[in-house]
Amino acid sequence: MNKRNVLYAQSGGVTSVINATAAAVIETANKSKRINKVYAGQNGIIGILKENLIDTSFEDKSQLKKLLHTPGGAFGSCRHKLKDFDTNKREYKRLMDVFVAHNIGYFFYNGGGDSQDTTNKIAKITADIGFPVTCIGIPKTIDNDLPFTDNCPGFGSVAKYISTSTREAGLDVESMSETSTKVFILEVMGRHAGWIAASAGLAAERKNDAPHIILFPEVPFNQKDFLIKVKSTVKECGYCVIVVSEGTQDKNGKFLADSGSIDSFGHAQLGGVAPFIASIIGKELGYKYHWSVSDYLQRSARHISSQVDLDQAYAVGEAAVKMALSGENAVMPIIIRKKSKKYEWEIGKVNLSEVANFEKKMPKSFITKEGFGITQSCKNYLSPLIQGEAHPPFKDGLPDIARLKKRMVRKKLKNFRI
Amino acid sequence: MNKRNVLYAQSGGVTSVINATAAAVIETANKSKRINKVYAGQNGIIGILKENLIDTSFEDKSQLKKLLHTPGGAFGSCRHKLKDFDTNKREYKRLMDVFVAHNIGYFFYNGGGDSQDTTNKIAKITADIGFPVTCIGIPKTIDNDLPFTDNCPGFGSVAKYISTSTREAGLDVESMSETSTKVFILEVMGRHAGWIAASAGLAAERKNDAPHIILFPEVPFNQKDFLIKVKSTVKECGYCVIVVSEGTQDKNGKFLADSGSIDSFGHAQLGGVAPFIASIIGKELGYKYHWSVSDYLQRSARHISSQVDLDQAYAVGEAAVKMALSGENAVMPIIIRKKSKKYEWEIGKVNLSEVANFEKKMPKSFITKEGFGITQSCKNYLSPLIQGEAHPPFKDGLPDIARLKKRMVRKKLKNFRI
Repeated sequence: MNKRNVLYAQSGGVTSVINATAAAVIETANKSKRINKVYAGQNGIIGILKENLIDTSFEDKSQLKKLLHTPGGAFGSCRHKLKDFDTNKREYKRLMDVFVAHNIGYFFYNGGGDSQDTTNKIAKITADIGFPVTCIGIPKTIDNDLPFTDNCPGFGSVAKYISTSTREAGLDVESMSETSTKVFILEVMGRHAGWIAASAGLAAERKNDAPHIILFPEVPFNQKDFLIKVKSTVKECGYCVIVVSEGTQDKNGKFLADSGSIDSFGHAQLGGVAPFIASIIGKELGYKYHWSVSDYLQRSARHISSQVDLDQAYAVGEAAVKMALSGENAVMPIIIRKKSKKYEWEIGKVNLSEVANFEKKMPKSFITKEGFGITQSCKNYLSPLIQGEAHPPFKDGLPDIARLKKRMVRKKLKNFRI
Repeated sequence: MNKRNVLYAQSGGVTSVINATAAAVIETANKSKRINKVYAGQNGIIGILKENLIDTSFEDKSQLKKLLHTPGGAFGSCRHKLKDFDTNKREYKRLMDVFVAHNIGYFFYNGGGDSQDTTNKIAKITADIGFPVTCIGIPKTIDNDLPFTDNCPGFGSVAKYISTSTREAGLDVESMSETSTKVFILEVMGRHAGWIAASAGLAAERKNDAPHIILFPEVPFNQKDFLIKVKSTVKECGYCVIVVSEGTQDKNGKFLADSGSIDSFGHAQLGGVAPFIASIIGKELGYKYHWSVSDYLQRSARHISSQVDLDQAYAVGEAAVKMALSGENAVMPIIIRKKSKKYEWEIGKVNLSEVANFEKKMPKSFITKEGFGITQSCKNYLSPLIQGEAHPPFKDGLPDIARLKKRMVRKKLKNFRI
């Protein structure tokens, strides 16, 4: 049993390019003579705990290639954070049992901050028990909130989708504004950081272009200032396009999305923040409005992914395997922006112990003083990340997607209850 | 004054390809020696009443070419239906004054059913007053509800956007469903007919593919049957993707969107139908859900327009001018599906008197007996309309758009109050 197996798992909210990372891990590992097979946890770490492992060696190469243009998590993901070792020995012990039973030599965990924390712990424990497994974290999050890496794979594509949609919808609203809709509100993701909302700002090329107002989680919502800005925008431009982050809060740190609507059964939180903002505008200013909540559409929109994002998602997967094979452990590949005038990037690395559980917020210098827009330095940061159109192939008018067999590895252990 | 001018106007809700029709009218008219200039009403018929006419001869040819990939209404649109001549002589008289003052010989009105009715009236009246203007209607509506034409320019692109988004979001939800979201609801446009909702059904290629449930305006919503279907879908597939038309009604013909939520100020109609459906699922079945309202995003998404739709939008504009020049009057070019096995289409025509104010609903044979999906004959009808990807050119990572000068024609008449 000289050649050991790879175990790859996806974690947390998926992106339109996370499967490109998966493809890179599988393809790069398959090239190495030191690696036997590549397994994938079915639905992430949950699948590993349950010993539900997918043997990727049964997949056709042509289907694995299609992972490059298939959104979602092809092997399934999950939201399951392992607690501290001291309070949760049972789950860690189970992971070790699965690793040993299936001769796992390399573990690649593809996720956000929480996942990197888990990966780091697993690296330590496998060393402690005398069955050392090389553990490499691979960054992924549309929220763009991981530290050290210049940006996160998955974010660039959302940014491209949101900026494109803002430009397109802005033209629509502008053309209707004389007699109909005056205000359009687009709600975007980003519970704790305004990176996605900020990306909408790229749509504005000239003065008075949409978006006219961006509401960030970083800027406490002031209704009075906001309404003044909406009114003056409608007066000047004839219409107003607002992009609001789902994480926008009032001055007491309460999410606006929580304070708005109640449904006919008396439940709060029925609506998102967009309909809440819309209702304020309708009541206070009387403008006709429309609103949109893009929700999962934004993070699964592989049809408008950024080529830079796709390249980086592949590169971190490839680099992760190469790092593992070169003897690195408990590290995560990161994207480093070179200091060149033209945007260039390279892969670096950081120790997982440094990454774990640290959220990168938008710098203050990226938000205008007024608080409703982005600065030129923010544009300079964001713009390179949306470059290039990674159009997927289409079949019968629709994006072609991978269809995997997902053949399961034969179980060797007893059942495990989570 | 031998050579007369063309007047073109956009009407009602815009589409991602209506500007391709505009480009076709301008380009085709500019080729004719019998036509002097092409004017466009600023914000549709309102602009004509106000004598706000845009002289397109000042536009650069390169910018006019860009209309082929610019969504929204480049000259502005409006919602303004002219009443009957008998109750509204003043506005008709004003239109005649503008036509005479600016030597309009040809009027092209690009809109839905209401607009064709108006176009027909104008044709009659100009003949009656001895200043005959050739009036041609040009079809446009994302709702696909115009009669006689096999389909409406603008619809195919929405259908492509919705079916693509449904497939993409479906993959996202599927991959998260083990521990997180089980139900995803996408709200789409279509107040009176379910064509757009139906198009989501194209996303399902295999059994159990998303969407699992489509709610049509044509099928009265039955909460009990619906919840049974959601539950059985989650049991079988692990998740459930629902596409709901904004026009979905209960058995009494009341829009679901009207019966759902009230905001914190006591206003009804804050939310759309998606959050309403979500709240029912949360309350009755307890599944974690996400919902999206695509709203204007769907009809402005030029980045994912169908090539067939774009070609047809151009073709009806071109045909309209050619019909006018060949002596036709009070007609509308339509799209005819040939009886060939492979999808082929050609341009035909219909008299405006026949089109006016008639809505084309989905045939019963297009909806499954159960009422939650589309039949194979519906797929056969819809599929050709989403074929081909009319990717726009991108500049700096974003869709490039036309920037028009919109030079106004010098006014010759007194002001007019609408």
